[in-house]
Amino acid sequence: MNKPILGIIGGVGPLATACFMEALIRKTPARRDQDHMPMIIFNDPQIPDRTAHILDHRKANPQPEMEKVARWLERAGADYIAIACNTAHYYYEGIVDAVSIPVVNIMEETASKLSADIGRGKLVGLLATEGTIASGVFQDYLKRHALKTMEPTSEEQSVVTALIYDGVKAGARYDRNQLLELASGLHERGCDAVIVGCTELSVIYQELDERPSWLYDSLDVLAERCVDIYQRARKNGGTLEI
Amino acid sequence: MNKPILGIIGGVGPLATACFMEALIRKTPARRDQDHMPMIIFNDPQIPDRTAHILDHRKANPQPEMEKVARWLERAGADYIAIACNTAHYYYEGIVDAVSIPVVNIMEETASKLSADIGRGKLVGLLATEGTIASGVFQDYLKRHALKTMEPTSEEQSVVTALIYDGVKAGARYDRNQLLELASGLHERGCDAVIVGCTELSVIYQELDERPSWLYDSLDVLAERCVDIYQRARKNGGTLEI
Repeated sequence: MNKPILGIIGGVGPLATACFMEALIRKTPARRDQDHMPMIIFNDPQIPDRTAHILDHRKANPQPEMEKVARWLERAGADYIAIACNTAHYYYEGIVDAVSIPVVNIMEETASKLSADIGRGKLVGLLATEGTIASGVFQDYLKRHALKTMEPTSEEQSVVTALIYDGVKAGARYDRNQLLELASGLHERGCDAVIVGCTELSVIYQELDERPSWLYDSLDVLAERCVDIYQRARKNGGTLEI
Repeated sequence: MNKPILGIIGGVGPLATACFMEALIRKTPARRDQDHMPMIIFNDPQIPDRTAHILDHRKANPQPEMEKVARWLERAGADYIAIACNTAHYYYEGIVDAVSIPVVNIMEETASKLSADIGRGKLVGLLATEGTIASGVFQDYLKRHALKTMEPTSEEQSVVTALIYDGVKAGARYDRNQLLELASGLHERGCDAVIVGCTELSVIYQELDERPSWLYDSLDVLAERCVDIYQRARKNGGTLEI
């Protein structure tokens, strides 16, 4: 395979991983198979639920299994790693320490892009799992880029959680307009932008007929960044810039 | 990861591989991430074009690279292999010989399902790459299951080739109704069933609003078979039945 090879810690969740793979392919400027970027995906659905552990540390810890997958990817030849799950970034430092190749950070990339697009000091709505919201990790990345966060109300958060767990993860039907209604609620309450900050919500985002310009999908941002890293490395004779 | 692990020779083509991954996930009876099947995907777009080599053996031979990916998958822990590309099955025996784990055969599975569904002696239309058509490999599998093949006219084949190479593989726009028109043409000329026998055409098939009951997608059949293999192995304490 051509270098550099992207390694993906997949299965968190499975459909979000497939959605990420498709986004990477659709965002690559390519006219034929051979123009596309090489990647290795370890889709490991047995990684324990991230939110369950963040909310209750007595539950199974997903970190050891994610570190194992990261090491597998490195051993299999991956040159850099991405994780198609925001909540998993609660364990980001541990995964970084487990390997000697760089790990692209979906929260850092999203916060950085937002700050560049809408400017410092702005207010950003965050649609994410209860685990992500409770951990405060995404809010910290936004703060480092001088952005303020508005979280959903507890009623709104219940709808977000149901969309993620009873909808996408359960392989069940859901009303895709609920995502737009949740985002619009935050936007109308003063948010300059709203983040689709859970990759199960990204699956729904990809299905929307219309996407407001103020709505940012973290999976989309991560995919664009990974394609950009590959394209630039190909021009630089393989040197990664992350 | 749970056993058995499915290894996928990907990148042939990339979008078809993502489409296959999504089909596997959507066909799995699962209520949460952890119910899904583990898989390893080596997406290697540098595998040379299969049709180009079949039509002109002076062109780059994709077989060595596909054998390499198969061996990588086995070394990485895969217990069985699938390839999301019909044309690649021209090289099936070589890939089987390269590894000691079973390789599910998309053409054999499709022919077997068709024969069971519509009965022996029936006539089947085949929509596939020029490489697949010229090699006669798919026709041989159908013959072994007592099915006769009708190939598209050369004018129809030009439309098929353009959909695959100038449409899906090129990441360009295409008219998805052309797939339905091509299939209907074969059906009206007496075919009892029509096979979507190229996984780029499967990408279009998945986007159709209506799918006639006589239209069989080879990627769909392969995905169903792989999910079935996993589910049965889980019940049998890990024993693969392929």
